[in-house]
Amino acid sequence: MEKNIGKLIETLRSKKISMFRKDFLLTWEKSRDEIDATFLVADALRAMRDANISTRVWDSGIAVSNFRDNSTRTRFSYASACDLLGLYVQDLDEGKSQIAHGETVRETANMISFLSEAIGIRDDMYLGEGDKYQREVAKALDEGVAAGVLPDRPAIVNLQSDVDHPTQAMADFLHLSNHFGGIDGLKGKKIAMTWAYSPSYGKPLSVPQGIIGLASRFGMDITLAHPEGYDLIPDVVELSKRQAKESGGSFRHVTSMDEAFKGADIVYPKSWAPFDVMQKRVPLLRNGDQAGLKDLEKKCLENNARYRDWECTEDRMKLTRSGTALYMHCLPADITDVSCKAGEVAASVFDRYRDDTYREASYKPYIIAAMILLGKEKDPAGLLAKMLERGTPRVVRP
Amino acid sequence: MEKNIGKLIETLRSKKISMFRKDFLLTWEKSRDEIDATFLVADALRAMRDANISTRVWDSGIAVSNFRDNSTRTRFSYASACDLLGLYVQDLDEGKSQIAHGETVRETANMISFLSEAIGIRDDMYLGEGDKYQREVAKALDEGVAAGVLPDRPAIVNLQSDVDHPTQAMADFLHLSNHFGGIDGLKGKKIAMTWAYSPSYGKPLSVPQGIIGLASRFGMDITLAHPEGYDLIPDVVELSKRQAKESGGSFRHVTSMDEAFKGADIVYPKSWAPFDVMQKRVPLLRNGDQAGLKDLEKKCLENNARYRDWECTEDRMKLTRSGTALYMHCLPADITDVSCKAGEVAASVFDRYRDDTYREASYKPYIIAAMILLGKEKDPAGLLAKMLERGTPRVVRP
Amino acid sequence: MEKNIGKLIETLRSKKISMFRKDFLLTWEKSRDEIDATFLVADALRAMRDANISTRVWDSGIAVSNFRDNSTRTRFSYASACDLLGLYVQDLDEGKSQIAHGETVRETANMISFLSEAIGIRDDMYLGEGDKYQREVAKALDEGVAAGVLPDRPAIVNLQSDVDHPTQAMADFLHLSNHFGGIDGLKGKKIAMTWAYSPSYGKPLSVPQGIIGLASRFGMDITLAHPEGYDLIPDVVELSKRQAKESGGSFRHVTSMDEAFKGADIVYPKSWAPFDVMQKRVPLLRNGDQAGLKDLEKKCLENNARYRDWECTEDRMKLTRSGTALYMHCLPADITDVSCKAGEVAASVFDRYRDDTYREASYKPYIIAAMILLGKEKDPAGLLAKMLERGTPRVVRP
Repeated sequence: MEKNIGKLIETLRSKKISMFRKDFLLTWEKSRDEIDATFLVADALRAMRDANISTRVWDSGIAVSNFRDNSTRTRFSYASACDLLGLYVQDLDEGKSQIAHGETVRETANMISFLSEAIGIRDDMYLGEGDKYQREVAKALDEGVAAGVLPDRPAIVNLQSDVDHPTQAMADFLHLSNHFGGIDGLKGKKIAMTWAYSPSYGKPLSVPQGIIGLASRFGMDITLAHPEGYDLIPDVVELSKRQAKESGGSFRHVTSMDEAFKGADIVYPKSWAPFDVMQKRVPLLRNGDQAGLKDLEKKCLENNARYRDWECTEDRMKLTRSGTALYMHCLPADITDVSCKAGEVAASVFDRYRDDTYREASYKPYIIAAMILLGKEKDPAGLLAKMLERGTPRVVRP
Repeated sequence: MEKNIGKLIETLRSKKISMFRKDFLLTWEKSRDEIDATFLVADALRAMRDANISTRVWDSGIAVSNFRDNSTRTRFSYASACDLLGLYVQDLDEGKSQIAHGETVRETANMISFLSEAIGIRDDMYLGEGDKYQREVAKALDEGVAAGVLPDRPAIVNLQSDVDHPTQAMADFLHLSNHFGGIDGLKGKKIAMTWAYSPSYGKPLSVPQGIIGLASRFGMDITLAHPEGYDLIPDVVELSKRQAKESGGSFRHVTSMDEAFKGADIVYPKSWAPFDVMQKRVPLLRNGDQAGLKDLEKKCLENNARYRDWECTEDRMKLTRSGTALYMHCLPADITDVSCKAGEVAASVFDRYRDDTYREASYKPYIIAAMILLGKEKDPAGLLAKMLERGTPRVVRP
Repeated sequence: MEKNIGKLIETLRSKKISMFRKDFLLTWEKSRDEIDATFLVADALRAMRDANISTRVWDSGIAVSNFRDNSTRTRFSYASACDLLGLYVQDLDEGKSQIAHGETVRETANMISFLSEAIGIRDDMYLGEGDKYQREVAKALDEGVAAGVLPDRPAIVNLQSDVDHPTQAMADFLHLSNHFGGIDGLKGKKIAMTWAYSPSYGKPLSVPQGIIGLASRFGMDITLAHPEGYDLIPDVVELSKRQAKESGGSFRHVTSMDEAFKGADIVYPKSWAPFDVMQKRVPLLRNGDQAGLKDLEKKCLENNARYRDWECTEDRMKLTRSGTALYMHCLPADITDVSCKAGEVAASVFDRYRDDTYREASYKPYIIAAMILLGKEKDPAGLLAKMLERGTPRVVRP
């Protein structure tokens, strides 16, 4: 085990990275070496925990959690990650529907950061707002450090914005990396990121955007599939096409679930709201226009209903490579006849892949911890080596 | 002090227990040796804290708190217990009125447990539901471990279900053990677990059930008293009768408070809702039938009012052995002319025993910590000995 | 750096203090040596953190936070302070509008304190209630310790009451001390504590009271300015006058902002509610009289509007010494044309002093930590020296 950890640290040392004092907001702002470094640190932290070696970096220190939307699993992942490193989570609760700007963001960012090491932010409800807000906080922190107000720059981790969901996407691909024998094993693999029917409405676009934005870094053959009108942010699709080409992969954009499933090694069937609905929602949410929101929801659900056959069924799974593609989901999935009458996936399919989806989710705490550690320590390999050498047990045993 | 701790550890070593990787849901699922071991670990942890010896087992680790009903004191007890062992509490807030089942419970149980060591659950509102829910979580965790999804099995601690309230009952009896010079000192002692009047409604049955279910393990003479219609779950009463007999004690079931108090060494006057009311409540709560609940409450309070004389008065206390029985309560008590016009206990009686009830409550954090430690460590005596030897001070002193 | 810390510890050793097992409720209950000791401990803790030396005193221990009013920054300051010392914060949430007394306060105070080291209380909404409540908790804890129910006396820190806001005032003056080259540098300095216009209503009096109550300890020349009717608690004003005289300073009470600003070294323009409005509010709040509250608010805002010219403008700043007085605020400030149409301060003034106000706020976590440490350790200098010698790094580095 420890030999394996040593190897991870050695590989990490060979990566050219510049992540110190930087935030993790979008995977496509990170180089391939930086993506790989994040996987390596996550793997090393997990291996050390498995070997009962403490990875506590901080003897004291605050990690701020700023959830501007509900969350159970990301909340637990973040808390687990911070605790693993020795940080104490303090919630910043500004009220959910509020969009704060300018003076308030600037001031609050500094007020919560005097003794803070990391800030995790989830802000995914408003298209055009979440990523912007995170950058506003980042700028305020930069100014606070420059003015000598803050002793150190807390690292911001994007826990889901309107644009990307990097902790989800990175966990998903660390899962794939381990499933396919290393990240290089993904080269040439076919992945289908496809819309699926759900009786709910208003699901953010950040998961599919995060998946295509990251899958396109590894030379994979990507098929993005959705009914007409269910577009993602056009810039992210363009960027993914470009990245796919650069990494030696390909990018197809289709309007048929069957077509996406054909020959796929990996399928990711997941519902999201139509792009124009998400755009129309923003002013309604901002103005608290309940009637308008209700009306929009009604129209959207009616439109959704036309695509009820976009379900990951047993028949569709048979279209995939040898009929055994790996099914993925960020959870919770809308399972037909289990969580709803008609949903994203057939019960028997989900049942077969349940443990895989749980395993997929299990990487998230380690990915978040890696992001924090890389943002806070210039020499992450050196730090991991030091903790390995220190050998403090995480759990005292007789 | 340290000599005393050493003795507790030695006694613990002599107990035959099989608590590792098991949950603490009902006291009657534990052997006498296991009950005793829990007391011993609690006493040892408390003695070590008093001697300024750190009992931190975990350098990092999450403890989940899942309160499906309001709570202040159990919340603090659980947080204190977890902190004492080095665990960081993360709340799982699913919304109070929700009864989750099946897929959701299975999935959530795994999602919150990737880096978790313990899960404390309070679920006492629905007769027939709380214990069931805890077992559903336990099964999901077992499956997660079997599938290799979870690195380790978190220990579940029942923080109050519809059936038992083991952290309360165990704290109560550790208090009694210390009060009567050891748990063997309880043999032959008369305890009156009796209903008392309260102007409120819908109080759970788990405290009286927990008390008779545990008192019957130690050869005590138990009297359970309540007005007709205020029955407990019949199975728990039957089990207590059986256990009382097996342990060399006795069990009487009466409908008079006076009769219960006569010659008692210990009295536990406490209100609870009638069994059939609790049964009628379940479908009303589940359907969110506010009108039905209001109607039921009205009838119940009217019925309660007929038993307003079931109060722990000075006159009744005089009926007890030498008039000096130990008064117990899980707190907060309904005190006549203090918290309400007419309640469970006279102000002067409560006043005389206030410190005793506070002392009674003070055992709960240690009992919870003991339950967690015993569920997580195969050799608890070895672990305690190691921490004693390590001798890290809990508080740094000059 | 460490030499400097050593010097702080030496100075601390020379102070005659009796703060062990005492609460920090009002600055004027503390001697000058005790005030100075608090500054010294805060400075030492900050210097040790800056030097990457861990100041973790507790390996485990609970710090209770009891916020009976909303708060973001004080919440973070308290959490950061507790974490810096190794304490784990557990929130006591009793519901905001509730005034608990008697049995409930007594019982709750004990129930939350079995393993607690500190209790931070914010209770500022009701004139005549906040300080009283804190003393009721203190008395309950004293009784719990005397009865042997509590193993140790948690230290209460006043996080804002109706009378004083000592963590704010102490942080403000540690900021001034560092700004003017030491606390003795404040002698003879002119400070203007002045009311300012705000479109909001019902702001507590504790900040201005805290400022004059503390400024009057250091031989400063204080001017308190407000429109007629916006009095502070008369007793606090009288006490400040007396203290100012005793410390070799002076105290003026005027009704003109200009007059207060003239020649001032420091200006603190801040809105608060009129005294009689705060008094009228208490029974309305207690009775939940929403209509009465609305009516009172309306009248109050109308009255406020008459003093819209009480703004800290560029012109007014020119009246101060060399036009360069230090502007102070507890934040958030009502900034004209930024957070409101007309407010306490002109945007350009605030802009120039923004970093100063952030720096001012940065002292609060250290002041709170110092208050806790001094309430819990008889020999604070010895403890700091021991942690300095121990030299555990706060952050592990390669």
